[in-house]
Amino acid sequence: MASKTQVGFVGLGNMGNPMAKNLLKHGYPVIATDVFPESCKEIQEMGAQIVDNPAEVADKADRIITMLPSSPNVVDVYTGPNGILKKVKKGSLLIDSSTIDPAVSKEMAAAAEKMGAVFMDAPVSGGVGAASSGKLTFMVGGAEEEFTAAKELLSCMGANVVYCGQVGTGQAAKICNNMLLAIGMIGTSETMNLGIRLGLDPKLLAKILNMSSGRCWSSDTYNPVPGVMEGVPSGNNYQGGFGTQLMAKDLGLAQNTATNTKTPVPLGSLAHQIYRMMCARGYASKDFSSVFQFLREEEGQ
Amino acid sequence: MASKTQVGFVGLGNMGNPMAKNLLKHGYPVIATDVFPESCKEIQEMGAQIVDNPAEVADKADRIITMLPSSPNVVDVYTGPNGILKKVKKGSLLIDSSTIDPAVSKEMAAAAEKMGAVFMDAPVSGGVGAASSGKLTFMVGGAEEEFTAAKELLSCMGANVVYCGQVGTGQAAKICNNMLLAIGMIGTSETMNLGIRLGLDPKLLAKILNMSSGRCWSSDTYNPVPGVMEGVPSGNNYQGGFGTQLMAKDLGLAQNTATNTKTPVPLGSLAHQIYRMMCARGYASKDFSSVFQFLREEEGQ
Amino acid sequence: MASKTQVGFVGLGNMGNPMAKNLLKHGYPVIATDVFPESCKEIQEMGAQIVDNPAEVADKADRIITMLPSSPNVVDVYTGPNGILKKVKKGSLLIDSSTIDPAVSKEMAAAAEKMGAVFMDAPVSGGVGAASSGKLTFMVGGAEEEFTAAKELLSCMGANVVYCGQVGTGQAAKICNNMLLAIGMIGTSETMNLGIRLGLDPKLLAKILNMSSGRCWSSDTYNPVPGVMEGVPSGNNYQGGFGTQLMAKDLGLAQNTATNTKTPVPLGSLAHQIYRMMCARGYASKDFSSVFQFLREEEGQ
Amino acid sequence: MASKTQVGFVGLGNMGNPMAKNLLKHGYPVIATDVFPESCKEIQEMGAQIVDNPAEVADKADRIITMLPSSPNVVDVYTGPNGILKKVKKGSLLIDSSTIDPAVSKEMAAAAEKMGAVFMDAPVSGGVGAASSGKLTFMVGGAEEEFTAAKELLSCMGANVVYCGQVGTGQAAKICNNMLLAIGMIGTSETMNLGIRLGLDPKLLAKILNMSSGRCWSSDTYNPVPGVMEGVPSGNNYQGGFGTQLMAKDLGLAQNTATNTKTPVPLGSLAHQIYRMMCARGYASKDFSSVFQFLREEEGQ
Repeated sequence: MASKTQVGFVGLGNMGNPMAKNLLKHGYPVIATDVFPESCKEIQEMGAQIVDNPAEVADKADRIITMLPSSPNVVDVYTGPNGILKKVKKGSLLIDSSTIDPAVSKEMAAAAEKMGAVFMDAPVSGGVGAASSGKLTFMVGGAEEEFTAAKELLSCMGANVVYCGQVGTGQAAKICNNMLLAIGMIGTSETMNLGIRLGLDPKLLAKILNMSSGRCWSSDTYNPVPGVMEGVPSGNNYQGGFGTQLMAKDLGLAQNTATNTKTPVPLGSLAHQIYRMMCARGYASKDFSSVFQFLREEEGQ
Repeated sequence: MASKTQVGFVGLGNMGNPMAKNLLKHGYPVIATDVFPESCKEIQEMGAQIVDNPAEVADKADRIITMLPSSPNVVDVYTGPNGILKKVKKGSLLIDSSTIDPAVSKEMAAAAEKMGAVFMDAPVSGGVGAASSGKLTFMVGGAEEEFTAAKELLSCMGANVVYCGQVGTGQAAKICNNMLLAIGMIGTSETMNLGIRLGLDPKLLAKILNMSSGRCWSSDTYNPVPGVMEGVPSGNNYQGGFGTQLMAKDLGLAQNTATNTKTPVPLGSLAHQIYRMMCARGYASKDFSSVFQFLREEEGQ
Repeated sequence: MASKTQVGFVGLGNMGNPMAKNLLKHGYPVIATDVFPESCKEIQEMGAQIVDNPAEVADKADRIITMLPSSPNVVDVYTGPNGILKKVKKGSLLIDSSTIDPAVSKEMAAAAEKMGAVFMDAPVSGGVGAASSGKLTFMVGGAEEEFTAAKELLSCMGANVVYCGQVGTGQAAKICNNMLLAIGMIGTSETMNLGIRLGLDPKLLAKILNMSSGRCWSSDTYNPVPGVMEGVPSGNNYQGGFGTQLMAKDLGLAQNTATNTKTPVPLGSLAHQIYRMMCARGYASKDFSSVFQFLREEEGQ
Repeated sequence: MASKTQVGFVGLGNMGNPMAKNLLKHGYPVIATDVFPESCKEIQEMGAQIVDNPAEVADKADRIITMLPSSPNVVDVYTGPNGILKKVKKGSLLIDSSTIDPAVSKEMAAAAEKMGAVFMDAPVSGGVGAASSGKLTFMVGGAEEEFTAAKELLSCMGANVVYCGQVGTGQAAKICNNMLLAIGMIGTSETMNLGIRLGLDPKLLAKILNMSSGRCWSSDTYNPVPGVMEGVPSGNNYQGGFGTQLMAKDLGLAQNTATNTKTPVPLGSLAHQIYRMMCARGYASKDFSSVFQFLREEEGQ
């Protein structure tokens, strides 16, 4: 264990923090930074070395993981004035686990290549809980010959590490999955609401759907109707889980990539709009399964 | 077996014909009718008695199954001048397996009740193949105390017979399932198309979705992309399966019930419109998974 | 004036009441009825004769106007146990100004024809204000040779009386107009909201749209953004005007006729769903231009 | 006339070519360039000076107009290795008439400001015909004190020059107008198609809409139904006019700006998807009013 070399980590938010901890737990010395100094305290106490900016991380570690909120943050962390690429060492492996536009991943990869480094995109599925327990799924895009090295690190933080193809395909897989997830969730919510209005018992309807061709993850694993399943946000007033605002962000990425590649995504696009309307009407921080509540008649109507 | 009493059957189309055969195979004497005399030949040769109209069926059998294309046909077969209710015997059990508006099922049940008969709605899922092999799923609505009697007959034709609640809930369950199915199929098609455009291998993308929260019946059992799965219509130029026109009809029913109950179904409604546009553009008789082809860029563009 | 013969009137709600008053003002003796006796008081005081039910109206008048909330009411008023057709005289002219499904208008016309009477559909555009001032527009469907007789009466209540074609086309024209109106209103609201977010002054944006190809009635006559125009509901907290619930009803009719005729109406269908969602979220009785408010970010978000 | 100083022009495509000609006709010496040398021939013969690249244009002229297909072209022409900003003179006025993302306009303005130059966005409405006859409408964003100088040049090429506000608002106005236009056109097409199916004469329906609240530019000025109006693309097999592909591009810009500003645009988004589907199905180069044909049942169905 002692011989493990340092791993850099940039971005210690809700997701990055537990991910970095898991690297520490697996015996990797971690050198980290974040724009908010307080975010660094917890892992500093666990033994991580904290530095001022991404360039300094790159100066000291040749394997770096980044976990950031959106495309502009990624661009800044890699190519900004104190960015990783200012001091990156030749042969470094740079793994970005942010969920961003695949076109930006490709740009970062090209910029890294000019400096002799390798960039891979490795967005995750699974939330804060999965990050804490090391059960994330990583979808990895980049040069296939680097996948083994990436998998060694990512396996400390995730249960599944899937190779998807060239740079950007990790993002593509993530975005595609979440678009279909949103469609399935809204569709399940509409369907359950309609069935209830037509006199069906919600648990029975869920059972029928789940043994038939209407079955999907949102109907059989994460049902949006309170009382149908236990241990899901619909049973807890839509707290916890995956926020509507985050889903709207991912659907915005799906929309942008679809627009840029001239691909028609009619349901994906409408799903985006519905989550956008929900954000405007006070649902931003509720779990995305609260679309059932949004579509349902308000009491007193 | 000799002691089994006659069962009436009205409607010997693509679905009704194999269903009636299965009743014969299970030893039930069948007395049947259809507006097209030729449709009766096959089961006549197998020993069924053919009569002129539904009223005559009702005159001779006190358990009757109907399998018709749409609401107006059902209204006519039950309440028309030569309809079942003209000669129905008190205590008769009338089971309608057509897929129609649940409001019409309720009207028929009320009309039957006035004559001292019991009406149940029992639409099916599964196509001609399942009808032939006796593997249909029946979703049954009506008085619970009659369910056992209905199940005895329906079990000859189906592998699953599910009690859904009061009259009309069988239709409601069918309609709800197919609405969510359509949403899942279009969603899967959009997602697979977008992923392919972004450089993902279709088989790999399907595998990732199926192990993630995007998973649904259309992605893991009936994938719409040619080459991803075997034994599904997408592998056979979208022939066979469940026609786009039939899906559009079911979505029209879903739309009508949603409008009548003032339930918002934004994705279900858009799915309806997309299948309607496909019908207008030459896809009416192709399997409903051909929406993948419809959304995809034509060659030469 | 004294020689004018009686005109029957069934349905004295918000619209029917001022319409019947205008007939009285033009010197027509009116014989009327309504399911709510209180609704009859006002015109009774103005000299109208009140009777118990539609059949009695038909017993005493051979020209009758009906103004009712929805299709089932129309069916009941014409063909119910105390309906007009129970006592209608041969040669009577029956004019229905309700907004209903054109298929129901056709059924009523066929039923009237069997009794030797003539039925025309003549739905209106314009609200309570136009009804009071006699400025409604009537869209009339039915036998062309009866149009002159119908126009004589309708002109007392409206400024425009337009002949549309065979029975049901009056409804068709009304439904088509309101579907396009809803699309234009939501489109204008989205556009104005987007423009404001992009830094445009709302009055200036409205001016640019109105001199360009984006121009529509909702942008130049009934702008949904508070402060852009005077004398419209957007300037009065969306009170008055044409309620969201009523628009949702008309869009439901449009949806039903589109479904029945297998016509794709993707934007009309989504407009219906949006107004349906608004009804579920507390906007039912606000003017339909409040969709601007619904789409806009809530304060404090 | 002789005293007029040179005006630079970059981008001599279908639109830029007639625009540059109008500058020449108004007596302005023009110095121009285009990536395709052949595009320059016509105006060279009319007396324009042709140079190799945008930097050389900037070297010789301090008022420059650019007219380019999309955002990346604009970025390249301004900030590329041979871009305008390489040799721009202090105090130069740079006017971009391309239709692009307003965020890119803002970036270009900031880059120009660093070099001491002024950048304005001035996209046009009106097609090749309006460009030839000098009847374009310019929507101008940028510093108000420069508007008079910009208007002097733009008036040579357009009939209306409208000041919209800060940099980017010209684009915003253009994008907003075209989004509402697309919604109105699809809405009009759905409505006309539905009305025709319900038995209405198309000319009569158009007349009724145009005197009612359904009225919009697409119904009264550019009706999409063949035979309703003369002199519009619907009367000429949808040739000429504004191509579906170009509309899809503008709707993509609207979608991107809406996504970036988190603004819900449900109908605008669906309109985008419909034009995208049309491009995939062979309508790319037809006028955008051909959506009527796309929604209509194919013959033989």
